[in-house]
Amino acid sequence: MYRALRLLARSRPLVRAPAAALASAPGLGGAAVPSFWPPNAARMASQNSFRIEYDTFGELKVPNDKYYGAQTVRSTMNFKIGGVTERMPVAEGKLNDHFPLVVWQTGSGTQTNMNVNEVISNRAIEMLGGELGSKIPVHPNDHVNKSQSSNDTFPTAMHIAAAIEVHEVLLPGLQKLHDALDAKSKEFAQIIKIGRTHTQDAVPLTLGQEFSGYVQQVKYAMTRIKAAMPRIYELAAGGTAVGTGLNTRIGFAEKVAAKVAALTGLPFVTAPNKFEALAAHDALVELSGAMNTTACSLMKIANDIRFLGSGPRSGLGELILPENEPGSSIMPGKVNPTQCEAMTMVAAQVMGNHVAVTVGGSNGHFELNVFKPMMIKNVLHSARLLGDASVSFTENCVVGIQANTERINKLMNESLMLVTALNPHIGYDKAAKIAKTAHKNGSTLKETAIELGYLTAEQFDEWVKPKDMLGPK
Amino acid sequence: MYRALRLLARSRPLVRAPAAALASAPGLGGAAVPSFWPPNAARMASQNSFRIEYDTFGELKVPNDKYYGAQTVRSTMNFKIGGVTERMPVAEGKLNDHFPLVVWQTGSGTQTNMNVNEVISNRAIEMLGGELGSKIPVHPNDHVNKSQSSNDTFPTAMHIAAAIEVHEVLLPGLQKLHDALDAKSKEFAQIIKIGRTHTQDAVPLTLGQEFSGYVQQVKYAMTRIKAAMPRIYELAAGGTAVGTGLNTRIGFAEKVAAKVAALTGLPFVTAPNKFEALAAHDALVELSGAMNTTACSLMKIANDIRFLGSGPRSGLGELILPENEPGSSIMPGKVNPTQCEAMTMVAAQVMGNHVAVTVGGSNGHFELNVFKPMMIKNVLHSARLLGDASVSFTENCVVGIQANTERINKLMNESLMLVTALNPHIGYDKAAKIAKTAHKNGSTLKETAIELGYLTAEQFDEWVKPKDMLGPK
Amino acid sequence: MYRALRLLARSRPLVRAPAAALASAPGLGGAAVPSFWPPNAARMASQNSFRIEYDTFGELKVPNDKYYGAQTVRSTMNFKIGGVTERMPVAEGKLNDHFPLVVWQTGSGTQTNMNVNEVISNRAIEMLGGELGSKIPVHPNDHVNKSQSSNDTFPTAMHIAAAIEVHEVLLPGLQKLHDALDAKSKEFAQIIKIGRTHTQDAVPLTLGQEFSGYVQQVKYAMTRIKAAMPRIYELAAGGTAVGTGLNTRIGFAEKVAAKVAALTGLPFVTAPNKFEALAAHDALVELSGAMNTTACSLMKIANDIRFLGSGPRSGLGELILPENEPGSSIMPGKVNPTQCEAMTMVAAQVMGNHVAVTVGGSNGHFELNVFKPMMIKNVLHSARLLGDASVSFTENCVVGIQANTERINKLMNESLMLVTALNPHIGYDKAAKIAKTAHKNGSTLKETAIELGYLTAEQFDEWVKPKDMLGPK
Amino acid sequence: MYRALRLLARSRPLVRAPAAALASAPGLGGAAVPSFWPPNAARMASQNSFRIEYDTFGELKVPNDKYYGAQTVRSTMNFKIGGVTERMPVAEGKLNDHFPLVVWQTGSGTQTNMNVNEVISNRAIEMLGGELGSKIPVHPNDHVNKSQSSNDTFPTAMHIAAAIEVHEVLLPGLQKLHDALDAKSKEFAQIIKIGRTHTQDAVPLTLGQEFSGYVQQVKYAMTRIKAAMPRIYELAAGGTAVGTGLNTRIGFAEKVAAKVAALTGLPFVTAPNKFEALAAHDALVELSGAMNTTACSLMKIANDIRFLGSGPRSGLGELILPENEPGSSIMPGKVNPTQCEAMTMVAAQVMGNHVAVTVGGSNGHFELNVFKPMMIKNVLHSARLLGDASVSFTENCVVGIQANTERINKLMNESLMLVTALNPHIGYDKAAKIAKTAHKNGSTLKETAIELGYLTAEQFDEWVKPKDMLGPK
Repeated sequence: MYRALRLLARSRPLVRAPAAALASAPGLGGAAVPSFWPPNAARMASQNSFRIEYDTFGELKVPNDKYYGAQTVRSTMNFKIGGVTERMPVAEGKLNDHFPLVVWQTGSGTQTNMNVNEVISNRAIEMLGGELGSKIPVHPNDHVNKSQSSNDTFPTAMHIAAAIEVHEVLLPGLQKLHDALDAKSKEFAQIIKIGRTHTQDAVPLTLGQEFSGYVQQVKYAMTRIKAAMPRIYELAAGGTAVGTGLNTRIGFAEKVAAKVAALTGLPFVTAPNKFEALAAHDALVELSGAMNTTACSLMKIANDIRFLGSGPRSGLGELILPENEPGSSIMPGKVNPTQCEAMTMVAAQVMGNHVAVTVGGSNGHFELNVFKPMMIKNVLHSARLLGDASVSFTENCVVGIQANTERINKLMNESLMLVTALNPHIGYDKAAKIAKTAHKNGSTLKETAIELGYLTAEQFDEWVKPKDMLGPK
Repeated sequence: MYRALRLLARSRPLVRAPAAALASAPGLGGAAVPSFWPPNAARMASQNSFRIEYDTFGELKVPNDKYYGAQTVRSTMNFKIGGVTERMPVAEGKLNDHFPLVVWQTGSGTQTNMNVNEVISNRAIEMLGGELGSKIPVHPNDHVNKSQSSNDTFPTAMHIAAAIEVHEVLLPGLQKLHDALDAKSKEFAQIIKIGRTHTQDAVPLTLGQEFSGYVQQVKYAMTRIKAAMPRIYELAAGGTAVGTGLNTRIGFAEKVAAKVAALTGLPFVTAPNKFEALAAHDALVELSGAMNTTACSLMKIANDIRFLGSGPRSGLGELILPENEPGSSIMPGKVNPTQCEAMTMVAAQVMGNHVAVTVGGSNGHFELNVFKPMMIKNVLHSARLLGDASVSFTENCVVGIQANTERINKLMNESLMLVTALNPHIGYDKAAKIAKTAHKNGSTLKETAIELGYLTAEQFDEWVKPKDMLGPK
Repeated sequence: MYRALRLLARSRPLVRAPAAALASAPGLGGAAVPSFWPPNAARMASQNSFRIEYDTFGELKVPNDKYYGAQTVRSTMNFKIGGVTERMPVAEGKLNDHFPLVVWQTGSGTQTNMNVNEVISNRAIEMLGGELGSKIPVHPNDHVNKSQSSNDTFPTAMHIAAAIEVHEVLLPGLQKLHDALDAKSKEFAQIIKIGRTHTQDAVPLTLGQEFSGYVQQVKYAMTRIKAAMPRIYELAAGGTAVGTGLNTRIGFAEKVAAKVAALTGLPFVTAPNKFEALAAHDALVELSGAMNTTACSLMKIANDIRFLGSGPRSGLGELILPENEPGSSIMPGKVNPTQCEAMTMVAAQVMGNHVAVTVGGSNGHFELNVFKPMMIKNVLHSARLLGDASVSFTENCVVGIQANTERINKLMNESLMLVTALNPHIGYDKAAKIAKTAHKNGSTLKETAIELGYLTAEQFDEWVKPKDMLGPK
Repeated sequence: MYRALRLLARSRPLVRAPAAALASAPGLGGAAVPSFWPPNAARMASQNSFRIEYDTFGELKVPNDKYYGAQTVRSTMNFKIGGVTERMPVAEGKLNDHFPLVVWQTGSGTQTNMNVNEVISNRAIEMLGGELGSKIPVHPNDHVNKSQSSNDTFPTAMHIAAAIEVHEVLLPGLQKLHDALDAKSKEFAQIIKIGRTHTQDAVPLTLGQEFSGYVQQVKYAMTRIKAAMPRIYELAAGGTAVGTGLNTRIGFAEKVAAKVAALTGLPFVTAPNKFEALAAHDALVELSGAMNTTACSLMKIANDIRFLGSGPRSGLGELILPENEPGSSIMPGKVNPTQCEAMTMVAAQVMGNHVAVTVGGSNGHFELNVFKPMMIKNVLHSARLLGDASVSFTENCVVGIQANTERINKLMNESLMLVTALNPHIGYDKAAKIAKTAHKNGSTLKETAIELGYLTAEQFDEWVKPKDMLGPK
């Protein structure tokens, strides 16, 4: 259990606050875990003082107010790439400053693993009244890392982090969007509108039917993401350095997975083949692929909504989008579809992230893929962006969408497509004549048909009923 | 049933020879279908004569020896893009010359749909003793296309074609590769070798264990592809122009799907939401994503094999790859890993195809995605390449791989990593001294340890046993 | 010079008919070259007979009517990947059947190089009255390949092929499109229309100004492609196996480049660093990148045109696109923007091809990149598609575009954006009141302003002049 | 000039500290500019107090210690996407906390533009003794934004930021790497080693020659990036809302560009076509493409170096890479190529970023591309990562690379490829016999040749001279 806790602790920097899981973990004594960390990390010694620590390369100055140690400092010296925004995604808590390493480091994430070991070591030393950096009585390697390897713990943390992000951010965001679109689909069930194929006028459907397509897309997005999770639930822990499990005991891998499953409430299992689990990250490429498909779906939906909401006068104007921020101060009705824009930008980013993950995933060699930090960064980025953007899009756009029924009806009634309904009554030739004349004169079918003397107003209304064109007979 | 047959017939141009399915179709009279097509398409009138046909735009010259008609000819005039290699993927049969249209046409595939209608019409006319191009007694629009729309039949054909390619080419290819790798994994189960992480020497594993990682990757590749199929099995047929099913009868969509399922032996169903099925092709993006992940797996495996087989003298040299073609005429042992090269090129192509599919899939508008021909072309391309390359790689490389046990043992014995096994016996400090001395002198651990007087040869052999390092205790 | 000719001959299979260049090549005797090839390749022995040839692996059956030999046949046996459409892009001439090898072969293109050697050898033997396959008196290795290496000749052919495709297809296509758009920009110079930002109504511009943006994009597309060419003009020839130039003579590389330059009329030079020229194909990635940017430009233009041409009644309707094929038989005005669809599909494909090229280009190792056939296939594919699609789009769409001035004026006059012009005259508050009232009532600014009693019709016409809003003052 | 300054000020949030440029700007009074900003932004009122501000939607609480105002706060409420690491890239100075907006906002960057306006307004008010948020006497819209539009100022800032990042980070980083590789190439000029093609042993070259290929790649990377800059130097400023320049004066655009050029020392010019400059961002796609090619180059180089440095015993072992952090505590010589790993991860990220930029660049509509924040974020990200990683890779890896000449010589001497040098002396058959025997027996060519009695040791040394195989004769 101690090992399992340690594993989880080490994985925490990658995940977002699994506080509830920790608190309710069986046998952990809910209160004990939170108290492991200081109420305020800033209470430590002033920012300007340093302690001297050593690694096998020599001495290094470590800021006194940081829990990390020599190996972390050395990494900050060797990898000055990209600045603070490029830091490893870390549980968003009060200890962010203690995890200063960037993604662009060792491809196995070893340095972040050591960063975690050092922080745990020093916090434990502090609690036990020892001296930070002394490595006594809790040594970062001998006691915290013990016989573990970054090679299996880091991918374990990757999978835990990805699974938690999917469950806490991505799926709830998509579900929220799904539900809002579904409600709109039902709300709009009776609004008949012109359909558009090739961006050109086509036969009618209801606005509710149109939205039902979006509902289906988001529903399947969730299906696809869930379908990728079984491989994410497989943990590499227990594979140690090359996948053989050297230095562990039989049963350790299974116990770790069971403990992580218990702590997170997610069905983690030990990976059936540890060689694959270290050397390849196909599971992350797969999850990224599911998010890439989701991005396609969301781009389609957001594009439709902004085009259908275009106007106020010179666009399609079928939807009235909520106005969330000052648009033009003088021109009412110009509502920029900013939520659609944020969503489509997110979609483009997710497609790009997916290629980065793909390139990384395809370039592993022998017993270890060394694109790990980059891959997990992009996967978490995509999951977060898609989840957050879905919520923002839902709350600030979808729920407030109104149908511009006046405009919808106008376009519907002006449409030339409805002429097809006259075929059985007046024959193809006369129907075509009506349409061509109406197109030429810019008139409606109805007025043209009457003018041509082919039928009466009553007959037109009787025969041309868009609502009879909404499904099979 | 007539409609269902027609539907399938129209979908056939995209698929590869579902002859068996057709022959055994209940109620179709196996013999009847094959005889629909002439024994030799070239028997028609000479290549240099034309017949005059008309469409609503005017008259067109149609080659006398072709079944297609005016609309097909018009498309060839309007879309001179890319030449013959860019033709729509067509069932590889004797009628290829009758389907001259390229992928780069209408985004709904309408022109190819009309191409099929014209060919069916003219062949039927021919069988009935009529005149080609007369549209009597079988009219390409009125009788063959009837009230169908390209908008639902083309995506139906896309899904049928994709499913058949997956089942006939992709999955069998991967299964073959899986089985061959699995056999090698078992064959190599006792060969202990040096592991490599970060491309650097690491602790040992067996060559069988290393290959077991590849086996797992390919196994999961099949799992992933199969997981994408439920959405591929959903057919748009019955949605007609915009998804409402206008002009069809209730139950038609279900009957079509049931018939296609019966004919192909695959579990096709009618799409639960036709609006999604016409306006988005997320299912193809998803399948392409599964193939993209597969490409990552195969690139990793092929890269490993070529590096492990590098040499003959200055590489890693652990594997002996089969020599399939004349290498250097004077230098024995230089076997270029050509199958690995073909496989990695295929993998790169599939990754590129995936981006094309993604871009197309994200750019649908309103009731119709108009990147259909491009999307299905890339999906079929990826499936075919991955399937074929897997077979080629298996037959011409994997099954013939031999372990260079002499080389493997040499590297194993020279390795410095094994020194870790001495820690419990002589302590960390002495063990480290042995390793450093051996590294400095270029000597083996054993000879160095003995020379330093830390242990005897017998003790070394007793304590340093790679085979005890292959799993947890 | 003999060597230079041989080099070019070997590179020809990749290029499209540089016949003119060949014919006019100084010192080559224009007539001699064409006569090297038979008037009709089919005149050889019947398709069903074989000759027996040998390579170092044993005997092989070679079709009697083919010029290729044993090594080519062996490649067809070892690389059954993808079928005939996957063949190496070959000069589109009468000898296609003699180059049966697919792209998915050795990553250095060695087998295609040998294919060329064998064909040249056998054709020469034939001309000299010898026996096909006898290798006497012209041996494919000893005499045709001589001391050359695929490693430098194949990338040389790649660069020649890419340069020719760029100059013969891509740039002329773009130029044609540029000129047509430029003519339209001038034709539409006086048509004032509503602008659209965020897809929403904005301040006016002329349709000519809008098109001028497209003109600029295509102009820069050509600039970008040309900017990539200097590296394409660098030829690897003379680097032989690893870049050192082993087995060549000093000056050979420069002479080859000079000869190719003379034959093609393009400024080829010898690559300043042959190691880079064999081991990396950054120049192709760069060219592909320029085409990727071009694809973005063309997708934007085609998207705009199809949206501006959407309708006939329920879209934006500002452009009238030419009708190229039968649209709806009954609904006049429904012109599907099929050329836009072909163009956007091509753009998506080029983006995908670019990723394939990128992945291939990044995965070279040591002295040789072995993604050569895949890379050049995709580069040529992109160049061809973009060039052809530009021509098709120009001829079948752009030149026929008409402005729907009635519709454009209507939207312009209905617009609420023009109210900003009233600020200086009646103040912000009244102007805003006008706009809000007009938006609420669905009325025009003019009638609302008059109704509200803020100004007269004459004043409105005097003050609200869209043509004064088209540029800086 | 005031306007130009304002423009630059507004663009600064995107750029990194053009302090030197500002200080030396003619007529700006170097001292004045820095003093515009407070010495310590934290000196403002405590974090927990708020002021009430209004926008047209109602009242909002603005933190008292922030310069930003209501529109910025509203954006933070409407776009809760991605957290702090997703903030718009901002000049890394002391005002970061005043620019809280994320990338995922309006696609035109309008909200960030207003953020800048509000900050400038409030800081000016503060300096003039006014009340923050009062908008008196400096109003964020009326005075700071004045008649400008986000639509042209934001892309202007994008281009300035990109150009500065390229010149301050990317090109210097690449130059540094180039110089270091060039120095190594010269240092290694005399070290003859085995070449490798297809990852297999090939003919020799010098290590200096091998490195010269890398030098050329990096040199061309700079060439490519510079070739993209002319379009980046074109500024949209002066185009205002849709590109017409409405509300500006003739000459304004040119003056802005001239001023920016003077302030930055870079050759900025006004964009020749403002419609293109707002509606498309092909210039950024192009620059991203140049960086994508650079990523391919750097991945190739980093891969080569890690494979050549693999070992210490079971790899290629030709290079000794600097050891930067504690590797294995017990196994000397295991130096993980961590800098190569960081570099290749960066390369993968840049390839992914490029796809995101491509998707965004291809999806602009009408007069405005609304993927602006996403596009510039990715371009700046790629430039920064490539530049930083090049420096890190140079300083922590390249400059410290040593040739393992002992190992290189050993591989060289053991190679079978050298046998080709014996052909002229003993004939092909005997040479082949030597090679085959040596391969079979695992012996060297020399000892085998002597043993077979074909030549003497002296003859072998006389005839087999790798140094004679390094270039043309």
